[in-house]
Amino acid sequence: MAKYGYGVDVGGTTVKMGLFTTDGTLLDKWAIDTDVSLGGRNIPGDIGRSILADMNKHSFDKGDYLGIGIGIPGQIFPDGTANAVNLGWDHLPLVSELQDMTGLRVTGGNDANMAALGEYWMGTGKGYKSLVLVTLGTGVGGGIILDGKCLDGAHGAGGEIGHINVNPGETRVCGCGNRGCLEQYASATGNARLALDALASSNKPSTLRSCPKIDAKVCWDAAKAGDELAMEIADKFCDYLARGLATVANTVDPEVILLGGGVSHTGQPLIDRVTKYYVNYAFPACRKTPILLASLSNDAGIYGAMAALL
Amino acid sequence: MAKYGYGVDVGGTTVKMGLFTTDGTLLDKWAIDTDVSLGGRNIPGDIGRSILADMNKHSFDKGDYLGIGIGIPGQIFPDGTANAVNLGWDHLPLVSELQDMTGLRVTGGNDANMAALGEYWMGTGKGYKSLVLVTLGTGVGGGIILDGKCLDGAHGAGGEIGHINVNPGETRVCGCGNRGCLEQYASATGNARLALDALASSNKPSTLRSCPKIDAKVCWDAAKAGDELAMEIADKFCDYLARGLATVANTVDPEVILLGGGVSHTGQPLIDRVTKYYVNYAFPACRKTPILLASLSNDAGIYGAMAALL
Repeated sequence: MAKYGYGVDVGGTTVKMGLFTTDGTLLDKWAIDTDVSLGGRNIPGDIGRSILADMNKHSFDKGDYLGIGIGIPGQIFPDGTANAVNLGWDHLPLVSELQDMTGLRVTGGNDANMAALGEYWMGTGKGYKSLVLVTLGTGVGGGIILDGKCLDGAHGAGGEIGHINVNPGETRVCGCGNRGCLEQYASATGNARLALDALASSNKPSTLRSCPKIDAKVCWDAAKAGDELAMEIADKFCDYLARGLATVANTVDPEVILLGGGVSHTGQPLIDRVTKYYVNYAFPACRKTPILLASLSNDAGIYGAMAALL
Repeated sequence: MAKYGYGVDVGGTTVKMGLFTTDGTLLDKWAIDTDVSLGGRNIPGDIGRSILADMNKHSFDKGDYLGIGIGIPGQIFPDGTANAVNLGWDHLPLVSELQDMTGLRVTGGNDANMAALGEYWMGTGKGYKSLVLVTLGTGVGGGIILDGKCLDGAHGAGGEIGHINVNPGETRVCGCGNRGCLEQYASATGNARLALDALASSNKPSTLRSCPKIDAKVCWDAAKAGDELAMEIADKFCDYLARGLATVANTVDPEVILLGGGVSHTGQPLIDRVTKYYVNYAFPACRKTPILLASLSNDAGIYGAMAALL
């Protein structure tokens, strides 16, 4: 019976990799640079070589490996080809190339879905039957796990929570082309924009006014320190986020909602504030759905990719 | 091998019942009154007696029956008890009572989910792998089918699409206690309210001003006839509905979205108008998701209850 497997998380700047036991122990992890030249054509070969080198380091039988799980910032189609706009991939034969190089089985999917699967397998979501992971980073990503399986969706858009409309009155355009998407407010960039708007439209004194650079961290630090304007910004951020979370809860009704990504490092003050607003939008049956911090941080993707092999 | 089954749809005024073949032919259908006296205590017995009488009419072996599928306006728990506020049920032992009376296997779930399963099995959704059914009636109900299974949710709130927030600025309270729920606009009652608001806040002439009673049908008839104010009301209705549909698409990404319920009898003009607004809110990958009319009308529930047995 196979005892080991590789979890791979392809990002725009680095490819994270981990060697796992099938019961969830991370034995080793490392990263290589993502080579986005030539339409990302070299990435599968780079990953394959890195894994072959790791296999050579160990004395395991080939039969001891379950395979390679891989998460990408895009979509893997049933035929094993992959699309990822940021990497330049357009139906790149990812699965067959990696399989041919390593002789291992390859499976995977969207990185946000893999991260959700990782939290489900070995993170805060362990023991729950269903969960939603919302990743508050540069953008807002999402992954939905129901009965242990990723909700990929018919067009790979399952869990695209960042593009739920939470503000029909918005005039500014989101990266997706729509207006009023959750990502425009509840991401790190959205948080900064909310802050700049608040600073411009109010005369309230605030420690933020003397900050050389407004980002999510300085906003939350100021809010934690009791800065009134920063608290108003945090309230706005959490009100928008709560609308998005409640919408997802009213639709898929998970056992638990997890928050991950850079902004979630704010910790419990974020959870407390968003939970306060969440009850205003959630259907009665979902009002007590716990909102918790994800726990695997940047490793969620490699954990989930490994879990996809199981 | 079993060849027949019963589909039962418990409503607030009547209980609809159908005798089906396992390949989807509705052989016979009928209805009995819903007795809501005594906390709905007599309903299981009434259903059981009606089914026993139908079984007596036929010469089928007991082994020819797959069982009884049942949809209720509430939730059936894993232990077979059922809650339904409108019927007065609070952990009523529905499954065991029906099983004991008839000797048949009993299974089921929420009526909106059953209706979605019905459309998936034998309605417009036939041939699709996943769908969302949104029912535009007195309220707005919803059911989500993924890979042939109902998304029930951890607290029975899967597909509670009517309570997605589509208007954060709303001051009026929805039946669920929140403000700005889809149901407050895109239901028959919501449609009438949008019309009354428009008539009160505008001086525009309109054929609606001489209507003795404003309801969804007169609004849509006037819009179809080219009444300008009625068209504005239809636009508002469809804009709100589109926000809700796009939100669900961005979350579960179904292959197709179906509209059912009384307001859907408006037909293609509703579909065309809501599709126009839908693209403003849908994530690019879901912008072409077809929005279609459901086809089983009031029989969707009994079809789905039967399908739950398969």
